[in-house]
Amino acid sequence: MTESILGNEWYSERYFFKNVATSFKIKSVLHSEQSKYQKIDVLDTFALGRLLLLDGKTMVSDKDEFVYHEVMGHIPAMIHPKLKNVLIIGGGDGGIVREFVKHPEIERIDLVEIDERVIEVSKTFFPDCTSGLTDPRVNVLPQDGVEYIKTHKNFFDVIIIDSTDPEDFAAGLFTQEFYHHVYEALTENGIMMAQTENPLYDEYGIKSFYDNLRNVYPVVKSFTGPMLIYPGVFWTFAYASKGLLPTQFNESKIPFMSMLEKKLKWYNMDWHKGAFNLSNIHKSVTGC
Amino acid sequence: MTESILGNEWYSERYFFKNVATSFKIKSVLHSEQSKYQKIDVLDTFALGRLLLLDGKTMVSDKDEFVYHEVMGHIPAMIHPKLKNVLIIGGGDGGIVREFVKHPEIERIDLVEIDERVIEVSKTFFPDCTSGLTDPRVNVLPQDGVEYIKTHKNFFDVIIIDSTDPEDFAAGLFTQEFYHHVYEALTENGIMMAQTENPLYDEYGIKSFYDNLRNVYPVVKSFTGPMLIYPGVFWTFAYASKGLLPTQFNESKIPFMSMLEKKLKWYNMDWHKGAFNLSNIHKSVTGC
Repeated sequence: MTESILGNEWYSERYFFKNVATSFKIKSVLHSEQSKYQKIDVLDTFALGRLLLLDGKTMVSDKDEFVYHEVMGHIPAMIHPKLKNVLIIGGGDGGIVREFVKHPEIERIDLVEIDERVIEVSKTFFPDCTSGLTDPRVNVLPQDGVEYIKTHKNFFDVIIIDSTDPEDFAAGLFTQEFYHHVYEALTENGIMMAQTENPLYDEYGIKSFYDNLRNVYPVVKSFTGPMLIYPGVFWTFAYASKGLLPTQFNESKIPFMSMLEKKLKWYNMDWHKGAFNLSNIHKSVTGC
Repeated sequence: MTESILGNEWYSERYFFKNVATSFKIKSVLHSEQSKYQKIDVLDTFALGRLLLLDGKTMVSDKDEFVYHEVMGHIPAMIHPKLKNVLIIGGGDGGIVREFVKHPEIERIDLVEIDERVIEVSKTFFPDCTSGLTDPRVNVLPQDGVEYIKTHKNFFDVIIIDSTDPEDFAAGLFTQEFYHHVYEALTENGIMMAQTENPLYDEYGIKSFYDNLRNVYPVVKSFTGPMLIYPGVFWTFAYASKGLLPTQFNESKIPFMSMLEKKLKWYNMDWHKGAFNLSNIHKSVTGC
């Protein structure tokens, strides 16, 4: 449960039944518009650099975007033995695409973002995040992911759900029916990933999310990474697959990743190996 | 650089050059006093339960104290091959003592807290944290840790530095001279641990802290755990030793810990094994 207050000097987000607030001091408001789907704001902040808000909620900041984008891109890329086709639903900022295009074996990356304006605003204000969108393997598709997924069966090797909170038009991305369609769109070794909130502040929401995933996928695992702009920072992510375990590296990728990881800000293979060793509270909340 | 504001409705802490703030809604102020050393407040908050402040800064809350206290207690207890004598400097809330007393092989635990009032206030308002202080192996010593450490050589197997920020009377706990005295007070297999701030918000402070440690200890490692009440949540901790590696379990403790970890909220041996596999930014900021 969140509520945002866009004041003159501070951006504040209240959460955990409005009993906690995180606030970032604003230098200036760089952009504001109402798209067909949502309010889009770009703030320049002292602590985070640029900060993208959708309907007043924090989506991406210069300072910590690398955490989210690198874990979403490189974890599945190190696991899948024959990665060709990737689908990202949401993620109009382009950050996850930027990480996937670093992997030469990938042949096609579909970015299905319902709100074309998020993509355009990101191109203007987050040029580093969107730098992968010009890669010839990338198809930017301004469409509804819930509909798009139904038109593909046994096609994508990896599907990333990079959406806003489960409210309004994004609610369809959190239903068990949707996870079934994602499952069917995946190839036999398919992997799905999604962000799954803060276990210290959203215990019950997370429980039901992971229960839904387990009803569909034989392998459901979780890991954590800090997101300064999300409520309570201690953020969890889900890894679900038709069988591949999240620490079973594709051995042939190791030499390549040994070079690539030197240029990354968060991801490395050592971290990846330890990331699925969960604390007790993380285990009990997610059931992983 | 932090600044805290205790208002009528909210407690706020500003940090990262005062450009970020975290705020917790207050139910009531349970206690306020000025001790010889500092202002001591206990708030009842909606999100965290009880929250202890020293000079306006968050020290301990009901909601997340288990993270800090369990990692500080059980990591060294799983590593040291012959753990007899433990020293905790600071830590007047008693939370780390509570975790160490769970280990039957420990013969003596000295808690050296400069401010006796912190201990007394904690006994009243944090009875679970202080529940270990009545254990017959525990010596509660209201003394200056900087002086106490000089009176012991080659005596403690584990020393935990659980202090406030490096300001005023606590500044002596962050000097290289102090780390030398800690080193000398440790036995030949000695382990020292301390909290080391947020790498995304205090990069330069952390660098110098770890450099200081490396000037004294042959083994210096780092790990992370989320502290909701500390600036930016993504919290790091240092493990330093005269030779023992932080993932080299004392094998004879494994059956005992297999039982104990079922009752803990954060710590388990799987998590411990993975916790020292660091992300790139954590590696580069700490040098570990």
